[in-house]
Amino acid sequence: MDAMGRSTKSSSERSKSRRPEAGPPVGSDFLQLDIGRAPAGGRTAWLTDRLRSAIADGRLPVGTRLPASRVLAEELRVTRGVVTEAYRRLAESGQIAGRGRLGTVVVAAPAPPRAHPAGPALPGPALFAAADREGAVDALRALPCRTDLSPGVPDLAAFPRTAWLRAERAVLASVSPGDFGYGDPRGAPALRRAVVDWLARNRGIRADPAEVVVVSGVAQALGLLARTLREDGISRVAVEDPGSLGTRQQLEYGGHTVVPVPVDQRGLDVGALRAGGARAVLTTPAHQFPTGVVLDGERRRDLLEWAAGGGVVIEDDYDAEHRYDRPPVPALRSLMPEGVCYAGSVSKLLAPALRIGWLLVPPNRLDAVVTAKRYADLGTGILTQLVLARLMDSGELERHLRHVRSRHRRRRDVMLRAIRAHLPGARVHGAAAGLHLMVTFGDAHGTARGGGPRGSDFRDTDLAEAALARGVKVHPLSWHRMTPGPAGLVLGYAAGPAHDIDEGVALIGAALRDTLA
Amino acid sequence: MDAMGRSTKSSSERSKSRRPEAGPPVGSDFLQLDIGRAPAGGRTAWLTDRLRSAIADGRLPVGTRLPASRVLAEELRVTRGVVTEAYRRLAESGQIAGRGRLGTVVVAAPAPPRAHPAGPALPGPALFAAADREGAVDALRALPCRTDLSPGVPDLAAFPRTAWLRAERAVLASVSPGDFGYGDPRGAPALRRAVVDWLARNRGIRADPAEVVVVSGVAQALGLLARTLREDGISRVAVEDPGSLGTRQQLEYGGHTVVPVPVDQRGLDVGALRAGGARAVLTTPAHQFPTGVVLDGERRRDLLEWAAGGGVVIEDDYDAEHRYDRPPVPALRSLMPEGVCYAGSVSKLLAPALRIGWLLVPPNRLDAVVTAKRYADLGTGILTQLVLARLMDSGELERHLRHVRSRHRRRRDVMLRAIRAHLPGARVHGAAAGLHLMVTFGDAHGTARGGGPRGSDFRDTDLAEAALARGVKVHPLSWHRMTPGPAGLVLGYAAGPAHDIDEGVALIGAALRDTLA
Repeated sequence: MDAMGRSTKSSSERSKSRRPEAGPPVGSDFLQLDIGRAPAGGRTAWLTDRLRSAIADGRLPVGTRLPASRVLAEELRVTRGVVTEAYRRLAESGQIAGRGRLGTVVVAAPAPPRAHPAGPALPGPALFAAADREGAVDALRALPCRTDLSPGVPDLAAFPRTAWLRAERAVLASVSPGDFGYGDPRGAPALRRAVVDWLARNRGIRADPAEVVVVSGVAQALGLLARTLREDGISRVAVEDPGSLGTRQQLEYGGHTVVPVPVDQRGLDVGALRAGGARAVLTTPAHQFPTGVVLDGERRRDLLEWAAGGGVVIEDDYDAEHRYDRPPVPALRSLMPEGVCYAGSVSKLLAPALRIGWLLVPPNRLDAVVTAKRYADLGTGILTQLVLARLMDSGELERHLRHVRSRHRRRRDVMLRAIRAHLPGARVHGAAAGLHLMVTFGDAHGTARGGGPRGSDFRDTDLAEAALARGVKVHPLSWHRMTPGPAGLVLGYAAGPAHDIDEGVALIGAALRDTLA
Repeated sequence: MDAMGRSTKSSSERSKSRRPEAGPPVGSDFLQLDIGRAPAGGRTAWLTDRLRSAIADGRLPVGTRLPASRVLAEELRVTRGVVTEAYRRLAESGQIAGRGRLGTVVVAAPAPPRAHPAGPALPGPALFAAADREGAVDALRALPCRTDLSPGVPDLAAFPRTAWLRAERAVLASVSPGDFGYGDPRGAPALRRAVVDWLARNRGIRADPAEVVVVSGVAQALGLLARTLREDGISRVAVEDPGSLGTRQQLEYGGHTVVPVPVDQRGLDVGALRAGGARAVLTTPAHQFPTGVVLDGERRRDLLEWAAGGGVVIEDDYDAEHRYDRPPVPALRSLMPEGVCYAGSVSKLLAPALRIGWLLVPPNRLDAVVTAKRYADLGTGILTQLVLARLMDSGELERHLRHVRSRHRRRRDVMLRAIRAHLPGARVHGAAAGLHLMVTFGDAHGTARGGGPRGSDFRDTDLAEAALARGVKVHPLSWHRMTPGPAGLVLGYAAGPAHDIDEGVALIGAALRDTLA
C-alpha cells in the first residue's frame, strides 16, 4: 500500500528506506529460490508461497520489479506456465500488478501485526472509586490476587467433568447431521423440554417448551429484553437498590434509564415502584442481590397486582436453587406467566463460563424476543445445549446441585465463623441462601434505608482497596448501590476452599483496621 | 390471583365456578392426605409439596379456607410445628395468607401453561414473495422437504465427531477451575492464539491475539459492529447487490440503512460505493455471496484506498477456505488492518450450529467492540472455545477441511452435470469455490446489471415456489437482491449426497417447465 502513498506508518516507513523505485528487476537469486525444494506436482503453489512470504517479510518491498515470467522460468528451470500462474494468483490477491513498461511490480504488502496492550488498562486505586465505570467488575476480575471473595461464582472445582464428558459422548453418538445446521433461534427442542421439566421440579413453574428461549446466560436475556422493551416504547426500568451493578449496567447499555427502588427486610418496596412510574422492573425475588432478602408473600401479591395493571416484571432467578435451610421459594413466574419475563441460567448451578440459560416471556413478547435472539447470534451453540439437556433429564444436574449445596453450606458456615472472629462489628445479611453474603458496618438498620454519602465512619471502597492491597478481592457494597447507604461488602464464599475463606476474612479484618486507623 | 379479581382468564374462570367463598374450612380428607406416605424426617417437605400440588392442580382453588394448623396436625397425627412450617412456606411464596377471622386462605394459584403454537406461522405461498420478511429464511428452513438445496451449509454428515470428543476429553482433563468462571469477554487466550495461527496459515493474515474477539458466529460479529458503528455516528452501510439477505437484515435490525452497491464480474463496484456516500461497506471479497465472484486485484487496491480515506470495510470471509481449483485468495484484512473489520467462523468449516467465530477489528474500534461483546453475553461458551482451539492447533481442522473440500468438489461436479442435463437454459456462476452456485435464466449478462422487475420471462420466486411444491428447497436469487435483475436461483450442493443433488435439480427442471407453462 505504500506504493499508493496512503498506508500505515509501519509499512510506509519500511518502504521509504527500502523501496527500489524503478530499478532493474530482481532475479531468482534474490530469494535463494531453489526449485529442488518444491514438491513434485506442486511447483506453482510452492513458488506462489515463496513469493508471498518474501512480500510479507519485507524481502520484496512494495515497488520491487519482479523478473519477466519468461526470465524467471528459465532461471528456475520450470515451464513459463508455472511462473505466470504464480503471478496471476498474486495479482488476484492484489499484491502484484502489471505496470506497463516497468513490468510486474509489488504493489501491496500484508501489514505486520502491531504490539497491542494485553488488555484494558487496569485503573489501580481508581478501580473501586469509579463505581459506574464500564468493565470495573471485569477489571477487578483480571487482577491477580491471593484470595478471591468476589460474589457470584459457585464451586468451580466441583464442575462435573466426568458426567459432562459422558453426556457429550452420548450426544455426539446420537445427534443427527441436521442438528449441526442452522437451527431454531429459540434453541434445541430437547433442551427447551428439559428446562420446562427442570423448572417444574425446582422452581414451581408450569410452562410450555414453546415459551422457552435458550439464551447465552442471563446477561443475554437482559440484552434481548432491553431491546424489545424499547421497541414497546419503554425506556425506563426500575431496579432494586441496592442491586446488581452488572445488570444495571446491562440495562443502561441497552438504552434504558434505570430508576432505583429501595429494598427493605421484606424485599423490593412495591409502593416506591408504583411511585417511581417506571413501566418495567428488574427484580431478584427469590434471593435479592446483594441483600439476600426473600420477597415476602404480601409484596409478591402486590408486585403481581402491579404487573396485572400493565407493569413488566423481569425476574432474575440467578441463584434460587441454592437455599440451605429449606426448599427455595417458588418463582414469581409460577404465579403469573402474563406479566413476568423469567430468566435463569446454569452460571450458579454449573459454571458461568458455559454461557447458557433460559428466558421465558409472555406470549405477547415472544415473537419480538425470538427476533432479537435471531439477530443477536442465530441461536446458542448446539452441543452445549444438548449436553445440558442430558444432564437435566438424567438427574445428573440435581445430583450435582445437592453435592455443591452441601459444600457451599459448609463454606458459608466457615465464613460466618470467620466474620464473627475477624469482623466483630459487622452485621451479616442474607446467609440463608445463595453463594454470597452481605455485611454492613456501623449502622443499626443495615439496609439501604439510612445513611448519608458515608453511612459509616469510612468508605467501603477504601476498605475494598485496602483488602486488595492485602491480596483479597471483594466487592464494596456501594458498587451495587445507586443511592447512599451504610458501608458494606459483598462476599462470595462458594468458590474457594475453607482455609482461603478464613484467611481472606482475617485479611479483611486487618484491612478494616487500616481503613479505620 | 383470582381472589384479587385481576387475573388470567383461565384461572379466573376456574375460580368462579369453584371458589368456596367463605364456606367452612376443608379438612385433611379433602386431599386424601396419608401421612404414612411421607418419608421419615421429611414430613414438612411432604406436606408442603402435597398442598402446593393441590393448589396447582385446582383441588384447592383460590379462596379455599385451610384448616387451622392445630386441627390439621391432629387429623394427620403430626406435630403442630410440621403444619405451621408448611403453611409458612406457602405463605412465603405468596400462595396462602392469613385472612383474620377466615383463617388461612389460598390466595394465588400457579397459572397452568397454555397451548402455544409450535412456532411462527408459516406463510406458505407468501413465503417467497415476501423477500424482506423477517425470518423468511428461518421459515423456509423449518418446512419439511424432500431435498434441501438451500445455500450456506457444509457437509454436516462429515462433522468430525470422534476428533471433537477426543479434544473435549483432553480439554476437560486439563482445564483449570478458574476457566469455568466469568472470563475475558474477548474469549479464551488459547483460542485467540489458535485463530491467529489459523488465519496466518489459511488466510494470509498476520495478527496479534489481542486484536481477536471470539464471537458467536458472523451474525453476532455484525451485530456488534452495527452497534459500535452507530456509536460513531455511522448509520448507513453499503452492501453488495446481489448480496446476502441474512446479513442485510442483520444490519437493518442493528439500526442501519443499507445502501446497495452493484457487483459485476470483478466484484464490488468501488466507484459506485464512492458515489453512494456510505461510510462503511459489508463485503465478501474472497467469494462474493451469491455470485461467487472474486474481487480482483485492482478493485481490492481501490477498496483499500477508499478505506485509507476513512471508510470502514467489513470483510465477511464466510467460506473462503472452500476453493477447489487453487488456493484461496488472501483476505483483504491481510493488506490493511487499520480500515478492515474482519469476520469469520466455523459455520462453513465444521457446522453452523456450533455458533463460534472471530472478529478482528482495528485498534481504534477494539474497546467499543469488546464492550459490546461484554454486554451481549459476557463472552462465548468456554468449552466450545477450548475444543476448537485444540482442533486448530493439532491440525485436525485442516485435515477435516481437506476431507470435506474433496467431498464438496465432487458434489459441485454432480450439480454442474445435473444443471447441464436438467436446466439447459441456465447460466452457472461462481462454481470455482464455496458451498453453493448461482444460476441465472434468460439474460445474456447474468449479473445484477440488467433487467426490469422481471428480468426474465418469469419470477424466480414462482420457480422457488414450484420447486418447493415438488419437495425441493432453493433460494430465489431475488431474495438476495435489492434492485431488480435477472431471475435466478442460489443452490447449495455441499450438504447432501450426490443422488439428492441430481434428483433435486431434475425436480427444479420440472418446476421450471411448470413455471414457464
